[in-house]
Amino acid sequence: MKITRLETCAVTPIDMEGVKDAIKQVPIGQADGAPNFSIRVFTVGPGGHTPHHSHASEHLNYILEGSGEVMEGDTARPIKSGDYILVKPHEKHQYRNTGETPLKFMCMVPKEYE
Amino acid sequence: MKITRLETCAVTPIDMEGVKDAIKQVPIGQADGAPNFSIRVFTVGPGGHTPHHSHASEHLNYILEGSGEVMEGDTARPIKSGDYILVKPHEKHQYRNTGETPLKFMCMVPKEYE
Repeated sequence: MKITRLETCAVTPIDMEGVKDAIKQVPIGQADGAPNFSIRVFTVGPGGHTPHHSHASEHLNYILEGSGEVMEGDTARPIKSGDYILVKPHEKHQYRNTGETPLKFMCMVPKEYE
Repeated sequence: MKITRLETCAVTPIDMEGVKDAIKQVPIGQADGAPNFSIRVFTVGPGGHTPHHSHASEHLNYILEGSGEVMEGDTARPIKSGDYILVKPHEKHQYRNTGETPLKFMCMVPKEYE
C-alpha cells in the first residue's frame, strides 16, 4: 500500500509539441507497482493547454482545481473543479485553461501510457 | 466524451457484509463505454466503514473529502482529503471514517469489478 500527497511528488515540465505551460506529477504509477492503471496529475497555467490530439488509450479525468474547457473534437465544452470526464479512445481532445488560476486535473491512463 | 458531476449520479446504498453506512456512485463506468477502468465514488458516514477484505483487483484511491483511516492488513494508517492511495491486488484493506463529517473517496478499479 502506498499513501502519498501531491506536494511530495516529483514535478516534470511537459516538453511536447502542442503543449503550453503544463507540468506532470504521477502520485500512483508503474514505479509503485500499479498493475494496470496510473494516476497522473497535470497542472496547466492560465492560458496554457495540453496537445490537441487523439490516441488509442482512454483518459479518465477529474478536475481538482480551476476551470477551463475541454475540446471535444473541434467543440469547446466548459469544465470546472468537480467535473468527471471520460475521453474515449481515438477521440480528439485538448484541455485548455481559460481561467485566471491553475487548472489541475487527474488523468488516469493504462500504465503503458503513463 | 462524457462530462458529469457527482450530484447528478445515481446513489446506491451498499448492502454487503462488513459494510456500515456507505453509498456508491459511478460517475465514469461501463455504461459510459469506459474500455478498461471505472471511477466509483464512495461516501462513508461518520463511524462507518467498507469491508475489511482483499481481492484480486487493485484500488487506485483519492480522498475527496473528510478523514479517517485505511487498514493496511491489521495496521491503521491515517488518511485525509488530498491523499492518493494504491491498494495492491490481494492486499487486505478497509476504509474507516473516524471523523465527524462524511468520508468521500474515488476508487478506480478494472471495469469488471465496478
